[in-house]
Amino acid sequence: MSSLQQTLDTIFAQNLSLYHERGFRRRVGYGRKAALVVIDMANGWTRPGSPFSCSGMDTIIPANQELINAFRAKGLPVVFTTTAYDVTSGPNSDMGLWSRKVPIEAMRTGSFEAAIDDRLAPREGEFVIAKKRASAFHGTNLSSMLKGMDVDTVVLTGVTASACVRHSTEDAIAEGFRPIVVREAVGDRIAGAIAWNLFDIDAKFGDVEPLESVLAYLARNDNSDAGVR
Amino acid sequence: MSSLQQTLDTIFAQNLSLYHERGFRRRVGYGRKAALVVIDMANGWTRPGSPFSCSGMDTIIPANQELINAFRAKGLPVVFTTTAYDVTSGPNSDMGLWSRKVPIEAMRTGSFEAAIDDRLAPREGEFVIAKKRASAFHGTNLSSMLKGMDVDTVVLTGVTASACVRHSTEDAIAEGFRPIVVREAVGDRIAGAIAWNLFDIDAKFGDVEPLESVLAYLARNDNSDAGVR
Amino acid sequence: MSSLQQTLDTIFAQNLSLYHERGFRRRVGYGRKAALVVIDMANGWTRPGSPFSCSGMDTIIPANQELINAFRAKGLPVVFTTTAYDVTSGPNSDMGLWSRKVPIEAMRTGSFEAAIDDRLAPREGEFVIAKKRASAFHGTNLSSMLKGMDVDTVVLTGVTASACVRHSTEDAIAEGFRPIVVREAVGDRIAGAIAWNLFDIDAKFGDVEPLESVLAYLARNDNSDAGVR
Amino acid sequence: MSSLQQTLDTIFAQNLSLYHERGFRRRVGYGRKAALVVIDMANGWTRPGSPFSCSGMDTIIPANQELINAFRAKGLPVVFTTTAYDVTSGPNSDMGLWSRKVPIEAMRTGSFEAAIDDRLAPREGEFVIAKKRASAFHGTNLSSMLKGMDVDTVVLTGVTASACVRHSTEDAIAEGFRPIVVREAVGDRIAGAIAWNLFDIDAKFGDVEPLESVLAYLARNDNSDAGVR
Repeated sequence: MSSLQQTLDTIFAQNLSLYHERGFRRRVGYGRKAALVVIDMANGWTRPGSPFSCSGMDTIIPANQELINAFRAKGLPVVFTTTAYDVTSGPNSDMGLWSRKVPIEAMRTGSFEAAIDDRLAPREGEFVIAKKRASAFHGTNLSSMLKGMDVDTVVLTGVTASACVRHSTEDAIAEGFRPIVVREAVGDRIAGAIAWNLFDIDAKFGDVEPLESVLAYLARNDNSDAGVR
Repeated sequence: MSSLQQTLDTIFAQNLSLYHERGFRRRVGYGRKAALVVIDMANGWTRPGSPFSCSGMDTIIPANQELINAFRAKGLPVVFTTTAYDVTSGPNSDMGLWSRKVPIEAMRTGSFEAAIDDRLAPREGEFVIAKKRASAFHGTNLSSMLKGMDVDTVVLTGVTASACVRHSTEDAIAEGFRPIVVREAVGDRIAGAIAWNLFDIDAKFGDVEPLESVLAYLARNDNSDAGVR
Repeated sequence: MSSLQQTLDTIFAQNLSLYHERGFRRRVGYGRKAALVVIDMANGWTRPGSPFSCSGMDTIIPANQELINAFRAKGLPVVFTTTAYDVTSGPNSDMGLWSRKVPIEAMRTGSFEAAIDDRLAPREGEFVIAKKRASAFHGTNLSSMLKGMDVDTVVLTGVTASACVRHSTEDAIAEGFRPIVVREAVGDRIAGAIAWNLFDIDAKFGDVEPLESVLAYLARNDNSDAGVR
Repeated sequence: MSSLQQTLDTIFAQNLSLYHERGFRRRVGYGRKAALVVIDMANGWTRPGSPFSCSGMDTIIPANQELINAFRAKGLPVVFTTTAYDVTSGPNSDMGLWSRKVPIEAMRTGSFEAAIDDRLAPREGEFVIAKKRASAFHGTNLSSMLKGMDVDTVVLTGVTASACVRHSTEDAIAEGFRPIVVREAVGDRIAGAIAWNLFDIDAKFGDVEPLESVLAYLARNDNSDAGVR
């Protein structure tokens, strides 16, 4: 794995040099009101024993806790997603075709696996969206809800880098939100996937930022008029 | 009201004549697999005492019961919608701007008002979608869920003709589904609104059909390969 | 027609009274940056000889001209839509199912009918969106384009009240924009349709305002920071 | 680069083993009617001299030609996308926020760069969609157009693997289409990006298939009822 990281670092450095010559990897930056979108930090992903279990939770959970607390302290919106299905067999399922690629039949509505990890327990006034696809935006009210709140910046965390976080980030900028992905708060279950997906995201879709810098932005953002429309 | 209906009937007849000359009001017809979409038949609409209460439930409820039973008998998908909000005050609400037009702050997630009327109680394997906007398609997984089921026809019922049923029908045909609106199974709360909205729908967006004809279609549709993909 | 209008006025007055008791027909109002969306003012709708020809252009065209000039004077975005299809026969058409309801096969991409009426000729820097469905938002980049411009208010005009203007208005508020529909700048081709559709819109989806009031809003709106993000 | 490929191959093999244990990387397979979606094979990507220029065109162009010919021979729909903007400066641009990450101001509507490479020249009856975002589905009519054609399978080619092809594939399966990505017909401009993006796609979003297998599918698919609805 460290030799993998070394090889990736070498190739990323070469690629960055091409990107900088060409004018890619610009900074989208922060806007006037941010929402936190915590993707799929439900037990099926955060704990062992599920096909979807991810690694690295010892550091990813605390990073998410810090961010959630910072957003709460500022009165800014916090949204959690999970992925869960009501009908997982037969011709009238809500899984669509995605069960033909990944084992989503394991994620049942109302199950322990589909519930947000209680180390990150949502509070009254926060949102839990049960999405059906990888993106937090696809087939959900997330975009129009955030627009109704006058949110223009979306801070993204959670799992996995190679699916739900990446697709959500791509959709966020497509919809017109500034995506900020927090490096320490994102996970996956296979080697390399965090590195190469965050590389692609940072070059083309959203700013990949260290936790510290996002917390510093929140600390200095007074959002004094965030609620005024 | 009977003079209103008379005036409307006269004007509809004139308008139909123009539409027929121009090639409007064609029949979209039935496809190979239908789903039933029962819109907002929740207590806040079906029972007195809410700002959203509608009239005509003595006939609308039985018409919906007949349809639901017919879809169940064929093993075809049944979807119920309601409209409900998690946060109804403050700057971080999921009501968006719609509360600036209509009193949606009365519809709370988990409330009696937001629950489907128990005369139409959803069964295991059926879907209840809590939408946030008028259309059953906007900000929901309905379109991609139905596409995943290989559904190409959407039978629409419920309330109100002048908002949620109409917007859902417009979106249904835009998305590529054949919309069939069942005349006796649709309601509203103001005089004339059912008549003029079904007139516009039938001319431009979906076929408005009597209950009897929809039941006859279901009876003869063997759907023998509906589940085979 | 005047007896129709009289009957409608009577019923609208009764309906408004119910709406006001129930808390409907609120005012969404103006936000901080508006865009003008001129719907389907293309020759197929504005001039005689097409299945889509509308009436009232003697007043609707000048009202649109006034609005377009006012938006231009303020440097605010102006968007025109038309409806046009590349392939109007065979199994691989872009008409979808809508040609099963209305004669859209008459609207060919690149035709005179599909071109914006030259009395309202779009200028460099303005947008012409060739939509395929009734709504200006469905299957187009309009929502994310406007969001990217920091627009929060959409002023809607054009034709027809009973289809494209209404569906666009419903989608506008669903997406999180404040819809303002300009009474004198909207048309249709059948009697009554403007009246009952603007009644429903004003009660539930967007503010129906007289031209004068929209022009007054634009005159006082300095938009001094409209371009600053 | 060959040491990069070697390292990636090693890590992919380990990752595949985890995926297979967990039930990922299933085969979505072909449905009953396919469309070809050729992404951004416009001069700005296929020829030198633009910030978006990609490598590998000596093999990617011929692979796309073979596929296009095979789809034409079967009368199946062929869709080309490009990315182009009408207004590339000022507060009222259609670039949205994406120009804050990548140099899309270089892609002007009507320019040589935005035109489909003439080695793949679209024919009458084929579609050219000028999208504004990475995904061929976002802010376009692609999904509802394909649904209207009764298409259930989307064969994807073009550039780039790390942006437009990947996001389009993710959206395709989310919308309910079976995505098939043709390995030899996809390109990028940075080392490794094709490999790791096709790896992620094949595991989670669509089947990555060799050209030969897609051509064989088309040869045996008689589509005899493809046009019958």
